[in-house]
Amino acid sequence: MRATVMYGAGDVRVETVPDARLVEPTDALVRVTRACICGSDLWPYNAMKPSDAGNRMGHEFIGLVEAVGSDVRTVKKGDLVVAPFAWSDGTCEFCQRGLQTSCLHGGWWGGTELDGGQGEAVRIPQADGTLFALPVGPDHTLMPSLLTLSDVMGTGHHAALSAQVGPGKIAAVVGDGAVGLCGVIAARRLGAERIIILGRHPDRIALAKDFGATDVVSERGDAGIERVKELTGGLGAHSVLECVGHGEAMLTAVSIARAGGAVGRVGVPQDTTLPNAQPTFYANLTIAGGPAPVRAYMEELLPDVLEGRIQPGRVFDQVTNIEGVPDGYRAMNERKSIKVMIEF
Amino acid sequence: MRATVMYGAGDVRVETVPDARLVEPTDALVRVTRACICGSDLWPYNAMKPSDAGNRMGHEFIGLVEAVGSDVRTVKKGDLVVAPFAWSDGTCEFCQRGLQTSCLHGGWWGGTELDGGQGEAVRIPQADGTLFALPVGPDHTLMPSLLTLSDVMGTGHHAALSAQVGPGKIAAVVGDGAVGLCGVIAARRLGAERIIILGRHPDRIALAKDFGATDVVSERGDAGIERVKELTGGLGAHSVLECVGHGEAMLTAVSIARAGGAVGRVGVPQDTTLPNAQPTFYANLTIAGGPAPVRAYMEELLPDVLEGRIQPGRVFDQVTNIEGVPDGYRAMNERKSIKVMIEF
Repeated sequence: MRATVMYGAGDVRVETVPDARLVEPTDALVRVTRACICGSDLWPYNAMKPSDAGNRMGHEFIGLVEAVGSDVRTVKKGDLVVAPFAWSDGTCEFCQRGLQTSCLHGGWWGGTELDGGQGEAVRIPQADGTLFALPVGPDHTLMPSLLTLSDVMGTGHHAALSAQVGPGKIAAVVGDGAVGLCGVIAARRLGAERIIILGRHPDRIALAKDFGATDVVSERGDAGIERVKELTGGLGAHSVLECVGHGEAMLTAVSIARAGGAVGRVGVPQDTTLPNAQPTFYANLTIAGGPAPVRAYMEELLPDVLEGRIQPGRVFDQVTNIEGVPDGYRAMNERKSIKVMIEF
Repeated sequence: MRATVMYGAGDVRVETVPDARLVEPTDALVRVTRACICGSDLWPYNAMKPSDAGNRMGHEFIGLVEAVGSDVRTVKKGDLVVAPFAWSDGTCEFCQRGLQTSCLHGGWWGGTELDGGQGEAVRIPQADGTLFALPVGPDHTLMPSLLTLSDVMGTGHHAALSAQVGPGKIAAVVGDGAVGLCGVIAARRLGAERIIILGRHPDRIALAKDFGATDVVSERGDAGIERVKELTGGLGAHSVLECVGHGEAMLTAVSIARAGGAVGRVGVPQDTTLPNAQPTFYANLTIAGGPAPVRAYMEELLPDVLEGRIQPGRVFDQVTNIEGVPDGYRAMNERKSIKVMIEF
């Protein structure tokens, strides 16, 4: 089968690899129908050390169940399923509490041992806990939005929950990538009174406004912080969604939160420390977030997608096929595309 | 009047200073009956640069209202009042939300402009928002416990709330100082199933056990982290109360919290960054806390003190008078005393 393999920074190839197959009785085999490229894929795309073995890539996909192991109970051949960006058993103490990204028997797609979502088929470990069956067929017009349930929409929702967004509050979203844009959707969905997006790409800002952003701050660094303060009576935002991950973004996030507020971070942190230990202390800020347990959010978000109340699929502005994946990485890395969808 | 002034590291003096007096119509004048020395006073005691002006010291006190300004409504001459460690107007948006330590018109005791609690009398700005009248006389036997409402008991409570302590959870308390000990009281009061105290001073550990600690970890650093993991089935504590403030304590705190757990920090941070930005992200930890809005907690904690359900006053193991304050600092700094009370 054809699949995406990264061998080092900037070196993404589509190759013929051994066919995915069932190994454990708890596995399912999924034929991928849609997948996509993630902003977090760009971190290794820019920094991965050369590797002879290469890493299989992709962690967001929808597909048809082709076969299941003898222990699988919740999905069957022919089901259309969406996979969260981490697999999980659904039964451990963390899964039961809705934190599937800390599953004691779970893990991440791709790498050297497992299939990735940017390929024709995927072996699904812990299929019962991992897969979420969709009540529609694979050609449904809402497929792009359904695909975002595998990561970016659930991740934006996690940022908003972690930032304690709620009715009457001012939310600020740091970053105008696909996750930031989904963070805007999530903040609006949770009732934020105002939503300030910090970003500077006109196409993304336009989409953010469509999604519910009420204010735009395009300045960066100290100027951006000052601008948010001006917009919030000098106090800052109640809820800040950090959707980037590098140090300057986190510094901005904690600097624009008002006293007693919360920062929900979902951008994969590139630094080893968190900034402003003292100012965040004196302001009684809450810093929360991490890898979103998107599996836990699928059930809640699905009706809003199916009934058209949210349209996170609009973050996809480019579509390719499996052979076009390397070009897709390039387009996203050069900020020529917000997010690339792969059709099979 | 006599009051405590710090002129530099290790240089604490008791001097005759100008009598405290009413200045604003919103002021009250309080004759101090009890005060104490705080663990946070030891930070400048060890690090303050020499100053000719000196800083007036003390932020925990109980006293009798001697006079009030013309705008004061909630306290009157003769009332016995406890003061929180920060003064606040009680009406701004932060005070209304119970975050008086971020009051838009509030501030901190002492320094070069205001009286401190370690003195015979204190001018109280924003008396209506700041002072909390006690329903007992100044010689009540529970006075030591009532005095802890000004800081350490409320601060321990804030740590426990910020760490999301609740029934069925395992709490861990980093630090066996007066705040850590009050954190044990607070964790038990909020229903923690197990309470692990990290500390090594036998007298403090004994008190922690009396207060409800179920496990003791005396190892430090990696060994202490490993021990907590062993005690918690390898997962760590749900709720960690960081009651010290230096970098190693914070590193320990975030390292012993389980995935999805929370660290409540109330130790004044001595470092400019927070450690482990990546592990805390992958574990979806919440880091919260800051200067405790103890004013907000007085009403809730008072009945438990008056009815003897909690005995935070037991953290005082030494009593002195105003002239003995420098010796009190020395005793606390050398860990010969947990916390020193000053009687007037």
